[in-house]
Amino acid sequence: MLNFDFQNPTHILFGKDRIADIGKHVPADARVLILVGGASAEKTGTLAEVRQALGGRQHSTFSGIEPNPSFETAMKAVQVVREQGFDFLLAVGGGSVIDATKFIAAAAPFEGDPWKILTSWGADITQALPFGTVLTLPATGSEMNNGGVITRHDIGAKRPFRSNKVFPLFSVLDPAKTYTLPMSQIANGVVDAFVHTIEQYLTYPVNAPLQDRFAESLLQTLAEIGPRLLSAPEPVYDDRATLMWSATLALNGLIGSGVPQDWATHMIGHELTALHNIDHARTLAIVLPSMLEERRVPKRDKLLQYGERVWGITTGTDDERITAAIARTRAFFETMGIGTRLKDYGLGAEVIDVVVHQLEEHGMTQLGEHRDITPAVSRRILEAAL
Amino acid sequence: MLNFDFQNPTHILFGKDRIADIGKHVPADARVLILVGGASAEKTGTLAEVRQALGGRQHSTFSGIEPNPSFETAMKAVQVVREQGFDFLLAVGGGSVIDATKFIAAAAPFEGDPWKILTSWGADITQALPFGTVLTLPATGSEMNNGGVITRHDIGAKRPFRSNKVFPLFSVLDPAKTYTLPMSQIANGVVDAFVHTIEQYLTYPVNAPLQDRFAESLLQTLAEIGPRLLSAPEPVYDDRATLMWSATLALNGLIGSGVPQDWATHMIGHELTALHNIDHARTLAIVLPSMLEERRVPKRDKLLQYGERVWGITTGTDDERITAAIARTRAFFETMGIGTRLKDYGLGAEVIDVVVHQLEEHGMTQLGEHRDITPAVSRRILEAAL
Repeated sequence: MLNFDFQNPTHILFGKDRIADIGKHVPADARVLILVGGASAEKTGTLAEVRQALGGRQHSTFSGIEPNPSFETAMKAVQVVREQGFDFLLAVGGGSVIDATKFIAAAAPFEGDPWKILTSWGADITQALPFGTVLTLPATGSEMNNGGVITRHDIGAKRPFRSNKVFPLFSVLDPAKTYTLPMSQIANGVVDAFVHTIEQYLTYPVNAPLQDRFAESLLQTLAEIGPRLLSAPEPVYDDRATLMWSATLALNGLIGSGVPQDWATHMIGHELTALHNIDHARTLAIVLPSMLEERRVPKRDKLLQYGERVWGITTGTDDERITAAIARTRAFFETMGIGTRLKDYGLGAEVIDVVVHQLEEHGMTQLGEHRDITPAVSRRILEAAL
Repeated sequence: MLNFDFQNPTHILFGKDRIADIGKHVPADARVLILVGGASAEKTGTLAEVRQALGGRQHSTFSGIEPNPSFETAMKAVQVVREQGFDFLLAVGGGSVIDATKFIAAAAPFEGDPWKILTSWGADITQALPFGTVLTLPATGSEMNNGGVITRHDIGAKRPFRSNKVFPLFSVLDPAKTYTLPMSQIANGVVDAFVHTIEQYLTYPVNAPLQDRFAESLLQTLAEIGPRLLSAPEPVYDDRATLMWSATLALNGLIGSGVPQDWATHMIGHELTALHNIDHARTLAIVLPSMLEERRVPKRDKLLQYGERVWGITTGTDDERITAAIARTRAFFETMGIGTRLKDYGLGAEVIDVVVHQLEEHGMTQLGEHRDITPAVSRRILEAAL
């Protein structure tokens, strides 16, 4: 087991009708800026619930945070915060709104150009406004971690940042709030949480059997509920609850503590989103199967363990079992209605040069748990994903 | 899944040579009271390491906190804190030292009689001194939770308390610090963590498959490493690390979130420790098998799942499988060198009246996840444990 630090102070308020409890966790004299994406938070009544829970507190709403939130939009919110003196932020939405809120919380009091927050991967953050979240789309885990990703359109860059200053103070996780989501977003959430887990599990063994089993618990659970979520004629509360809690625990720092981590699939996927606006989860579904195929040798031991424990693959030679494990992974994503080939998104070989160039531009030249995924290897992975 | 709140702000510093990092987490101007049990922290050199990590900070050491720490001893430390103006506590030891430190942290600034902290189950705690811990004995999970148990000898009472004010600020978990422990304490740690998990798992199903699998991960892992820890001719770092992290995660609030909890075994066990000074883990090993036997019907579904997933019991009628699961549990404790009968500790039927009387005295008359373990049921459980 590797040495590690683990700390996660976010207060989770999980379950039915928990928005009403927000009032206990926001200072009585706070001036609150609520941040939302499109119109759905208003339409579903969630925003009204949130406003009621804030009681007499002064508050206003900033809407228009887009999927894969942009630096440009976030900076508009920063201006509002600064000009109108808001001192507490409240994200109502999914990972995009929460990621943007983290950035805004850090950027508002930032001295100098907030772009430095992203070029320093968050290291330059020294303070942030306190904020809470009301999660409506389970997927990214942003509701209980200290990271985010912001896209800058003018240079086509999707940049992750991380800082202990941007843990949410609290996050409300009400599974019933997912009932109005389109099924494609539920599918994205399942695949996103699944790949987050894989990134922290499918590397090489370090004698950490508990971390392995926790990760396998998440993968087994997502594999079990994924197809059921899609086929249910009406939303089933417990399955929605399990998806929500699984997505949170897949990326709150716990399962990655003390073990190697990969994240190469994410880094390549980010470029596909930045260039071609493909949903984050779908870029992961495109890259991961080819990544595993390319990394059969360095990931051999964990691929065999994954195949056996998650998919019940126990017969055949090692190579056959690995092939089967990768095939089951791809089939799972496809079952969730998510294409695993570039061509499923109308893209062909012509995009690969640009993606590889962007990886180089962004310093993504030594990816993976062994830091040996060079641009040439990324190219092979993309070619295998055509 | 049940509604729940989860928050755990403790910073874990896990791994080799982490004591040196304490300095980063204790305020530079802190006046630190180090709390220890017997002489072992001094003898093993751990205390010297801790003092060095504190650098120039003013500090003193209070030693003599006993296993199952007493109200009387803790109050002596409270007096020292108050008289000498310490403002930061540092527990160096196992669950007993850490539990006592939590109580001392809350009792020192407490207005009125600190006994009220225990009669209120911790609810009367409104503030506490900040404190860190250096864990040397993995077992209770106290290093990453907000609870403790204090024994008052004059009235033979062992009282639990809980408050969000007494989460450790940080805990250093260095697996190598367990190398000097006697093997009986390693065995205690395995059984303690195992039963902590059981208390939050082996109740009734609420459609929470992720929580189930996380609990099963802990049980499987402890069952796997337990015998290996005992038979290893020399300590194996990774197994010690896995025991330490397992014991922490077995009782940090995570696996019990959103599911029913039992704790009847603990409540009966506490009386055995208070009356007969049996190690905490050993009282659990005495009570649990009889408890499961008594609760075959209300726990049926989870007993079958536990037998299958933790012990691989898949054949026989339901009743046969439940019998086998309970037998495997008892055999596991015995394999760890821990007796599972009152007679193994020189006790007979004569103690039962007193234990039942004490349960009544302490209000423990409606135990278990259904609150239906009356003193009469506790009596049957103890009779079955003779």
